[in-house]
Amino acid sequence: MNEERWLLPAGIEEVLPPQARVIESLRRELLDLYASWGYEMVIPPFIDYLDSLLTGTGQDLDLQTFKLTDQLSGKLLGVRADMTPQVARMDAHHLRRETATRLCYLGTVLHTMPDGFGGSRSPLQIGAEIYGHSGIESDTEILRLTLLTLQTAGIGECYLDLGHVGIYRGLARQARLDAAQEHALFGALQRKALPEIEALIDGFGITGAPADMLRALAELNGADALKQADTLLRGADAQVREALDYLHALADELGRWLPEHSFHYDLAELRGYRYKTGVVFAAFVPDWGLEIARGGRYDDIGQVFGRARPAVGFSTDLKGLLRHCSGLEERYHSSTAVYAPWSADPSLREAVEQLRTAGRRVINALPGLDQDPGQLGCQQALVERDGRWELENID
Amino acid sequence: MNEERWLLPAGIEEVLPPQARVIESLRRELLDLYASWGYEMVIPPFIDYLDSLLTGTGQDLDLQTFKLTDQLSGKLLGVRADMTPQVARMDAHHLRRETATRLCYLGTVLHTMPDGFGGSRSPLQIGAEIYGHSGIESDTEILRLTLLTLQTAGIGECYLDLGHVGIYRGLARQARLDAAQEHALFGALQRKALPEIEALIDGFGITGAPADMLRALAELNGADALKQADTLLRGADAQVREALDYLHALADELGRWLPEHSFHYDLAELRGYRYKTGVVFAAFVPDWGLEIARGGRYDDIGQVFGRARPAVGFSTDLKGLLRHCSGLEERYHSSTAVYAPWSADPSLREAVEQLRTAGRRVINALPGLDQDPGQLGCQQALVERDGRWELENID
Repeated sequence: MNEERWLLPAGIEEVLPPQARVIESLRRELLDLYASWGYEMVIPPFIDYLDSLLTGTGQDLDLQTFKLTDQLSGKLLGVRADMTPQVARMDAHHLRRETATRLCYLGTVLHTMPDGFGGSRSPLQIGAEIYGHSGIESDTEILRLTLLTLQTAGIGECYLDLGHVGIYRGLARQARLDAAQEHALFGALQRKALPEIEALIDGFGITGAPADMLRALAELNGADALKQADTLLRGADAQVREALDYLHALADELGRWLPEHSFHYDLAELRGYRYKTGVVFAAFVPDWGLEIARGGRYDDIGQVFGRARPAVGFSTDLKGLLRHCSGLEERYHSSTAVYAPWSADPSLREAVEQLRTAGRRVINALPGLDQDPGQLGCQQALVERDGRWELENID
Repeated sequence: MNEERWLLPAGIEEVLPPQARVIESLRRELLDLYASWGYEMVIPPFIDYLDSLLTGTGQDLDLQTFKLTDQLSGKLLGVRADMTPQVARMDAHHLRRETATRLCYLGTVLHTMPDGFGGSRSPLQIGAEIYGHSGIESDTEILRLTLLTLQTAGIGECYLDLGHVGIYRGLARQARLDAAQEHALFGALQRKALPEIEALIDGFGITGAPADMLRALAELNGADALKQADTLLRGADAQVREALDYLHALADELGRWLPEHSFHYDLAELRGYRYKTGVVFAAFVPDWGLEIARGGRYDDIGQVFGRARPAVGFSTDLKGLLRHCSGLEERYHSSTAVYAPWSADPSLREAVEQLRTAGRRVINALPGLDQDPGQLGCQQALVERDGRWELENID
């Protein structure tokens, strides 16, 4: 095995310098951004009882979650595959605030199989959530923050696909689908597998307006999808109308805040359908194909932890974004370093400390090594001149 | 199970606000400190092939490492219980530099059983390492950085215990102990179990000077231990003398750099004996009893990854330090927030953005909620006066 000791498992990355500095810098910039919007940072645990992790998001995460046996309790633990259920628990169980609560988080999550953009199994998940407010304003704030996050990470152009789980949920009820049928048709809709959708609708014996509307759903995507839905889904019941009205109101509000941004709609794209309760969205970059951020409303997520209240949030993978962006290394370029001799001389130490406190990097020589200060990234050196230590350029 | 969903596994913590902000702030201050000394950040993967993780540190970490089966490769994975082997692999395999390399890292590690101070199973390990230099100067730099780390974290007073694995290793060889005997006596020495040490020495049939010196070792600790060793171990062979001379030279160098600090010696305290090759040290706080940082020299650690070169480093647990420190919440106190109405009015948005860019926290009102700005931590609000948005104190 020895010769393979340096191999990493597929989809698991180590981050070397200078890339680690870029991640650290972007991490700080984003967390500072969220803090300036009033989002408080939380740090969910890396492992948790499996029951807690698979709450709400349920089966969606089961296959993606690494399982461990806890030697202390004998219970099954899971490595977090998503931090949202853990953050919901904090809001519901420990914080228990009456006011709206804005939380943000950042950390590695693990997936058993490669997923999402980049094929990673260890995304660096970053996200923000609002608890305790229901309505287009908190949706709008989360969408603004999603776009600002992508912009900060250097994503020049992206589009957002918006949907609402109430539409499919209402149509399924109107067509009297049972849970298994709803699930099967949902799967086909996600894959936009038109012949399969057709066959399922026929097979379930659905006819007339409900069948037409379910068929129409698969193609209701694009910038005009919302307008088309008004026509194509005009026979839908109150729940569906309510969801469409909500999306219209949200579109108006987004137009006020982000007039320069064009939103797309995809009324059949329903990631996290099982636990989402309202708006769902995903961000894409033209030509990449893969989703780079996602989010939505999941109002009941805290119930299992003792307190259901409204919730909306988004998340993305910082390492995934960096794999697709350029220019950040220049932006977060570290200053050139200073070379200092190895000596405990107080006046030298004072000079070194002053430079370090001012944010410069000062690298002490290590006696016995024939080191080239240039190879260490040093373009200046501390040199003694008439009893004073001065900075001198290295040729 | 529902009513227990909020429980966390023993020794696993979630971090709520404002404590998460304190950890984030201290994290940044320490990583910036290391950067200003020329240490480059690396991010080792959270899981790795078990073979890679248990290299060098070997059996020391086996019992502490959570194991997982990789569904992709069928191989055994481990959750890192220590990041040093992973950082050694980076130096040996991917960086492959000719110059001395200074690396630092920070991240959660997991242990199957509670360990170290605080009884945590998920320490936030932070550390720094120098590769490619052998000698008292790199040892000194790492020791200085250890003390500066503890000082930055608010540890007012601590003492450092220094030892050297060459002393026991030499005495064991001189007494012709076989590997099993060396291991048994090592265990008894770590526990400072004097009657057991006595019985083992007798049982192994060791007599004369080698027996006296091994007996003496258990009590060679304190500020004067090094001086006492010169007398008590004067019959030792060259390897032991070399180790003692090295400690004397290191003590002299430390005296030049840290004249205000008193060092202790413990010649039988040998954490990580199996993979350490020179100096070993641990930091303690008077009255806490438990070790709060540790480190030492492990020159051959990279060999298994294809390149053995000198290495010395230290690490500590950031969350553990914070549990024992006070005053950091005040030091990292966040600024008071500003309350802003919910409105896309461009002049308001400009005012909000200016404040946020200047580092202020601005929290948007969420319509429909009867929120008290004070409860959100707001002491000021943006209010419109004659067409201009101005900051006003909230009573």
